[in-house]
Amino acid sequence: MTGEARIIPLAGLPELEAGDDLAALIAEAATRTGGFEVGDIVVIAQKAVSKVEGRVVRLEDVIPSDRAVELAGEDGDPRQVEVILRESVEVIRSRPPLVIAQTPHGFVCASAGVDASNAKGPGTVILLPLDPDASAAALRERLTELTGIAPGVIVSDSFGRAWRQGTTDVALGVAGVVAIRDLRGSRDAAGYELCSTMIAVADEVAGAAELVMGKANGIPAAIVRGVDAAGDGTAADLVMPRERDLFR
Amino acid sequence: MTGEARIIPLAGLPELEAGDDLAALIAEAATRTGGFEVGDIVVIAQKAVSKVEGRVVRLEDVIPSDRAVELAGEDGDPRQVEVILRESVEVIRSRPPLVIAQTPHGFVCASAGVDASNAKGPGTVILLPLDPDASAAALRERLTELTGIAPGVIVSDSFGRAWRQGTTDVALGVAGVVAIRDLRGSRDAAGYELCSTMIAVADEVAGAAELVMGKANGIPAAIVRGVDAAGDGTAADLVMPRERDLFR
Repeated sequence: MTGEARIIPLAGLPELEAGDDLAALIAEAATRTGGFEVGDIVVIAQKAVSKVEGRVVRLEDVIPSDRAVELAGEDGDPRQVEVILRESVEVIRSRPPLVIAQTPHGFVCASAGVDASNAKGPGTVILLPLDPDASAAALRERLTELTGIAPGVIVSDSFGRAWRQGTTDVALGVAGVVAIRDLRGSRDAAGYELCSTMIAVADEVAGAAELVMGKANGIPAAIVRGVDAAGDGTAADLVMPRERDLFR
Repeated sequence: MTGEARIIPLAGLPELEAGDDLAALIAEAATRTGGFEVGDIVVIAQKAVSKVEGRVVRLEDVIPSDRAVELAGEDGDPRQVEVILRESVEVIRSRPPLVIAQTPHGFVCASAGVDASNAKGPGTVILLPLDPDASAAALRERLTELTGIAPGVIVSDSFGRAWRQGTTDVALGVAGVVAIRDLRGSRDAAGYELCSTMIAVADEVAGAAELVMGKANGIPAAIVRGVDAAGDGTAADLVMPRERDLFR
């Protein structure tokens, strides 16, 4: 039977700069909460990861294309839209200045994940990590080196959803955890087969962590404890294969 | 600063029947975990709510329409598809036997929420509650009567998502909690305006609860403690208004 789970905010990290040892800062913050336990999952906000990886662009260095000017409309910044287009493999929907695009990772999200809020100053935008699974794996390796415990790592971001208002945090990159819990073929409590149940457990863990992180709180990470999700997932597991996607 | 949150499974409920006092069974299960605290949110699986509300249909009583036969294809049960069509106001996408439909509540989801797994026996399907907000409000009122504490209540279900694999649990009905945390106009830790941030906190709470409930565990409810989400939301807050919906 499943037991209780805990969601522990990791606070007190400084403003992050490119090249910072994010894992060391997280390990230090975790020490203040009593340290890691075996089975812990550390959820880290994408922006924190992108900042230390230097995935920041100054808009004054960007020359917008004609298409960016068009998609920006009257309310958008064509330079920011230009960055979004460069981060996109396909624009899925647009209504100026809103752009929903698919990223090279396969994610479909607003602005291809390019975000101005909480950025490194006015006129800068933050991009998604180039390879969030690799970011998660590197953080996991360094956390293991520092603490002797290998936590699961999820790099999270806030995504909007089709048909539903508001964002929920989802997993962009994972290491040492499953992304999907596949119950297909297992049986429910009444003995009937759960024929089509795949649970996006990494997304639920990311959303749970958001509840204590908050956008406005300056808490870029949290520990989720008591959720048995150890495994070998990848963010690609969470991307709907194009041939099964009814909404493209 | 936000503190730690806890997710406490409520186990040991019996198999539910129409007319059961679900709130009393939940209150009893909560007592075994130490009882409710002020600010607690109780997340209850939709199927548990639908069962006690008698929202169960026997397929042998259903005569499928021509459209249901067509949408069922070779692999589906036309009687089940007929029930799905009756529970739908609009079919959004279909690929036999899969039907994505909008329900009268405004939710867009697979099978209009009609589900065979964990049902009351072979050949039966479970429908969504007629008014999940009212279900949540009634459970909240009865829990308050029984325990002296008025917890927030969320009725949850597992929904698939466009573009992402796997389901996450979301809120179908809420009482005594916010559905959306609206940060528009507030400022982030760096002082920049979070201009477009609306967080679907009720969906994140529902997803967090799923992490300890599990489909196969026979745990139909959980307490989420330590998340400050008291308020007066409705499930309609979580439905994207049609005029803003780019994916219809």
